[in-house]
Amino acid sequence: MTTPAYSVGVTEVEIDDEFWSGWVETNRDVTIEYQYERLESSGALENFRRAAAGETGGFSGMWFQDSDAYKWLEAASYELAKDDDPDLRERVDEVIDLVAAAQEDSGYIDTYLQLVEPDGKWTNLHLLHELYCGGHLIEAAVAHYEATGETSLLDVGRAFADHVDDVFGDELDGVPGHEEIELALVKLYRVTGERRYLDLAQYFVDLRGHEDRLAWETAHLDEIAGHAYSDVEQGRGDQIMDAGHNLFLEDGGYDGSYAQAHAPVREQDAVEGHSVRATYLYAAVTDIVAETGDEELWQAVQRLWENMTTKRTYVTGGIGPEHDHEGFTEDYDLPNETAYAETCAAIGSIFWNQRLFEHTGEAKYAALIERTLYNGFLAGVGLDGERFFYVNPLASSGDHHRKGWFTCACCPPNAARLFASLGQYCYAKREGELYVSQYVGSTLETTVDEIDVTVEQTSSLPWEGRVEVTVDADGAVPLNLRIPEWCVDATVTVDGEAVSTDGSGYARLDREWNGETIELVFEQQTRLTAAHPAVESDAGRVAVERGPLVYCAEAVDTDRPLHQYALPADADVESEHREDLLGGVTTVETEAAVPSLEGWADDLYRPVEETDIEDASLDLVPYFAWDNREPGEMAVWLRALDR
Amino acid sequence: MTTPAYSVGVTEVEIDDEFWSGWVETNRDVTIEYQYERLESSGALENFRRAAAGETGGFSGMWFQDSDAYKWLEAASYELAKDDDPDLRERVDEVIDLVAAAQEDSGYIDTYLQLVEPDGKWTNLHLLHELYCGGHLIEAAVAHYEATGETSLLDVGRAFADHVDDVFGDELDGVPGHEEIELALVKLYRVTGERRYLDLAQYFVDLRGHEDRLAWETAHLDEIAGHAYSDVEQGRGDQIMDAGHNLFLEDGGYDGSYAQAHAPVREQDAVEGHSVRATYLYAAVTDIVAETGDEELWQAVQRLWENMTTKRTYVTGGIGPEHDHEGFTEDYDLPNETAYAETCAAIGSIFWNQRLFEHTGEAKYAALIERTLYNGFLAGVGLDGERFFYVNPLASSGDHHRKGWFTCACCPPNAARLFASLGQYCYAKREGELYVSQYVGSTLETTVDEIDVTVEQTSSLPWEGRVEVTVDADGAVPLNLRIPEWCVDATVTVDGEAVSTDGSGYARLDREWNGETIELVFEQQTRLTAAHPAVESDAGRVAVERGPLVYCAEAVDTDRPLHQYALPADADVESEHREDLLGGVTTVETEAAVPSLEGWADDLYRPVEETDIEDASLDLVPYFAWDNREPGEMAVWLRALDR
Repeated sequence: MTTPAYSVGVTEVEIDDEFWSGWVETNRDVTIEYQYERLESSGALENFRRAAAGETGGFSGMWFQDSDAYKWLEAASYELAKDDDPDLRERVDEVIDLVAAAQEDSGYIDTYLQLVEPDGKWTNLHLLHELYCGGHLIEAAVAHYEATGETSLLDVGRAFADHVDDVFGDELDGVPGHEEIELALVKLYRVTGERRYLDLAQYFVDLRGHEDRLAWETAHLDEIAGHAYSDVEQGRGDQIMDAGHNLFLEDGGYDGSYAQAHAPVREQDAVEGHSVRATYLYAAVTDIVAETGDEELWQAVQRLWENMTTKRTYVTGGIGPEHDHEGFTEDYDLPNETAYAETCAAIGSIFWNQRLFEHTGEAKYAALIERTLYNGFLAGVGLDGERFFYVNPLASSGDHHRKGWFTCACCPPNAARLFASLGQYCYAKREGELYVSQYVGSTLETTVDEIDVTVEQTSSLPWEGRVEVTVDADGAVPLNLRIPEWCVDATVTVDGEAVSTDGSGYARLDREWNGETIELVFEQQTRLTAAHPAVESDAGRVAVERGPLVYCAEAVDTDRPLHQYALPADADVESEHREDLLGGVTTVETEAAVPSLEGWADDLYRPVEETDIEDASLDLVPYFAWDNREPGEMAVWLRALDR
Repeated sequence: MTTPAYSVGVTEVEIDDEFWSGWVETNRDVTIEYQYERLESSGALENFRRAAAGETGGFSGMWFQDSDAYKWLEAASYELAKDDDPDLRERVDEVIDLVAAAQEDSGYIDTYLQLVEPDGKWTNLHLLHELYCGGHLIEAAVAHYEATGETSLLDVGRAFADHVDDVFGDELDGVPGHEEIELALVKLYRVTGERRYLDLAQYFVDLRGHEDRLAWETAHLDEIAGHAYSDVEQGRGDQIMDAGHNLFLEDGGYDGSYAQAHAPVREQDAVEGHSVRATYLYAAVTDIVAETGDEELWQAVQRLWENMTTKRTYVTGGIGPEHDHEGFTEDYDLPNETAYAETCAAIGSIFWNQRLFEHTGEAKYAALIERTLYNGFLAGVGLDGERFFYVNPLASSGDHHRKGWFTCACCPPNAARLFASLGQYCYAKREGELYVSQYVGSTLETTVDEIDVTVEQTSSLPWEGRVEVTVDADGAVPLNLRIPEWCVDATVTVDGEAVSTDGSGYARLDREWNGETIELVFEQQTRLTAAHPAVESDAGRVAVERGPLVYCAEAVDTDRPLHQYALPADADVESEHREDLLGGVTTVETEAAVPSLEGWADDLYRPVEETDIEDASLDLVPYFAWDNREPGEMAVWLRALDR
């Protein structure tokens, strides 16, 4: 097997950061632990046992429940890579044994189909999630192999991929209703070097959205919808499947846009449909571009990214404003209180942008990852690591709160695998150069073009902009240090000697390294941000940002209802670090105005010239930390005076 | 029979007004005409025929369909009062004959129950509308009697009222789920002088909302819900009744607030529940206060009015923001785009305020009638008289439009009877004095304390503030001319001689009248209005008003999306009368600002200090006239700069 070309390995980075270590440790000690307990209590493992025993019926959970086990295996493998804990290894091995036992001789595995509809395999690619679950199996397999060097799960993943390769393009043509297998197959290609896995990923990408497929789907609507899923979830199966099915319908015909199947990928120019599906697909497409150099696909990916980031992304990095289909809508449609902005979609965006970053080395992709990590993603997880947002509104009247584990538990396990592999997002290697893309205190030990390199990083982000990077290498390795978009002034010195930066988004240091320390100072200023005039929800409003963080107002910090505050466009702002608050956060206090309550008496309406505003101040906390205190209103976009 | 003490008679006023005559004529020629055709095509008349023939089954329409016939009879009677058109009289008599024939010997009449559930009479007062329909029967009967002096319909109404009087308080205790009978019984008392009708009205008012009733309802929930209404509306009956039933439920128990039955009326202090029900009830309560001097009820009515007008009324006079229960919610909850503000509720508010005005002579009630008439009510009717809003939002993204006649046609017939009786709202008599309450060109011939009085009024409202009133009388009659709240300067002259006003809300002229002409000039200025700081939906916003009219922006008049406009609090404004537009309206052009589109390139977010605003202007039209041109966005509350 070849060494994976992909990113830095999760085994190569060890995180030790004031801000992030707490999250990563809570993820390991609380979230992944709970996730494991949940595998048993939810019946996910029992499904594998029953399938292994050749039983039928008695399936528990959502029809894509297998993916919970795979996501846990992936997250747990990342932890094993960092610390070979014998107890964890034993659990991982036990779960792998169950999965392996449940796999059929053909390589097929999907306990929902095996237990509930053994004759229904590959008959409903829209709604059943065989390829989606299989993709997570493969991602777990790759992670486990990279962490341990063992092939116990990789063999299962390969057998499944081989089976899919046998079935598809030969006896069956079709694309999954939820993309995931595509990016997994590229990962599998990268660890195995087997080209057919890459080709299979490209097969799924290229088949998607062609007119003849659309015609086929429309003609088979009844067949697609015709399954009886009555024993899933205590009789809720029908409802769930009906709801899922309706997402593919538009005026009685098939509409693939929910799953990005409305047009061939290479012809698409706006991000549409379910936003997790979209980002998983475009992550895979970016991988394929990186491997094949397919220029047409690359143009499409760039168009899609431009559309998403210039017209369909919240200031938090969140994406997909709409609840019913958990997805994208129209350009500039970014409602705040009703935002969906699913945590999983933020994670999907990080996956996609990491691949874009590794392919191009362009700082803008890493900048969006940073924005999404600290805001749209991180808000999804409570400070206790036990409660999660699926949905991340940018304003709340006070009735939106994190919940514990869900039946459809996509977000918590997805967050778990991102936290567990966070080190992979901090550095990248490409074309013989090393990139520091996220400023997270950590140690990297890697090899760049056969040169061993050690990087030690300490970081004061997100609260301050001071970073130290100490580098040792066996030879000359160009080092690219990303200059964050938000810093108003960046100074870079090597052992006290100033280095000039060129506006490329990087400080590039092309030299030999013998333990020199690079000091970076990114000056942070609290800043007020406006949205494009076309964004109705943010009209006449500003968001407050500081460094990589978006801030918000919470009722617990204010005397008045939030709607009464307005900020001057040139508001005086002060920040203060408070160790006692929310686990230690830097708060922002901004000048504001509120309506005078004088003279209103019992009036409901008055001539505006008889009303007045008066000075006030408003305390803000980082958006990621909201809903960790008393419940109440929250708002990111605050009314502006003079806008 | 005694002369009714109530208001001026509809026979006594003839309207001839530049603004209103068009509406009144369209109402007579188009709306009432269509309403009549609809009685046949909807099956409403056929229901009476079948009931008269002793048939069962085959009921058409909603279960309160009878009320459509009664509302038509009421509106048509008002027209007969003004002009005894033989064709109309013949139609009216035919319908009266049908109604009379359908009435049972006992006096009972409700064709839904008679045809569908003959054994279910008086068994479900919550959902079935026997008393509601009966109330409309009585209102029609009184109107017909007053218009024609004939008792053909009055006899039917009295027989029904007598039957209700026999049944209730004796074999049965209960209150209707939809108030209406109460105010009708007071009208019946006033034309007949029969005290027991007033007592019966008071019985229904006083029984409402007592704890023992609530306990009874809760204990009988199954019984209440247990009817099968399967043959109503092609099988929709169950659904409709279920939906209706659910409005009375809260956490599995009975909650009377939907029908103001959560507490005794004399203990209520906030307007709650379905807003049409609420206004009909409080109109009746005000009548009872006027007749009995019940001080405790009067205190309650005043509390309820204060609550409604200082915390729960749109600037248009509309009430009841919430869709699901068509009603009131919390103080200051006045959303614009999702406003319900049903046209019928605006009409109900006019009914209630007219009674308050007649009882007290206080100008504030007439002022609210004026606001509601010109805005919240009038918007409900299209310029063509053929299309109607149930729902009157104060902002629209462009998908809210008037519709033709509905199955549940409460608003159009309600509008028809208000237009047809508009003269009654222009004048009032109380304690030997005459009031001019609304400035609508008209002639009044009436008697005040046995003195014959003739008033001729010409008015330039709502476009200008010039009014002339010529009075002739057989003796001294004090005349009270209302000074509108919106006028910035009022001058009153009698035959050219200035009269001082005292700030009471009136110019009171206590003198003999021999054809003197009073000239009133109410100076109008376009003004910007702010809402109470507690109203979240209007925070940082202003509404534009001129005279009695609320204005709005419509997309058809603007270059930019409406959300991009902001008005300086001291905006320069100009008005212009345009005969070519919307049947002739005065438009307002206001200074505004819009965000500069410079420098945005492909940015979705930018530092606010790099953005700018630029001068613009915004054309506004009267709110009542919106949605009569190309579909598009509409907004009453516009963003304000510096607020």
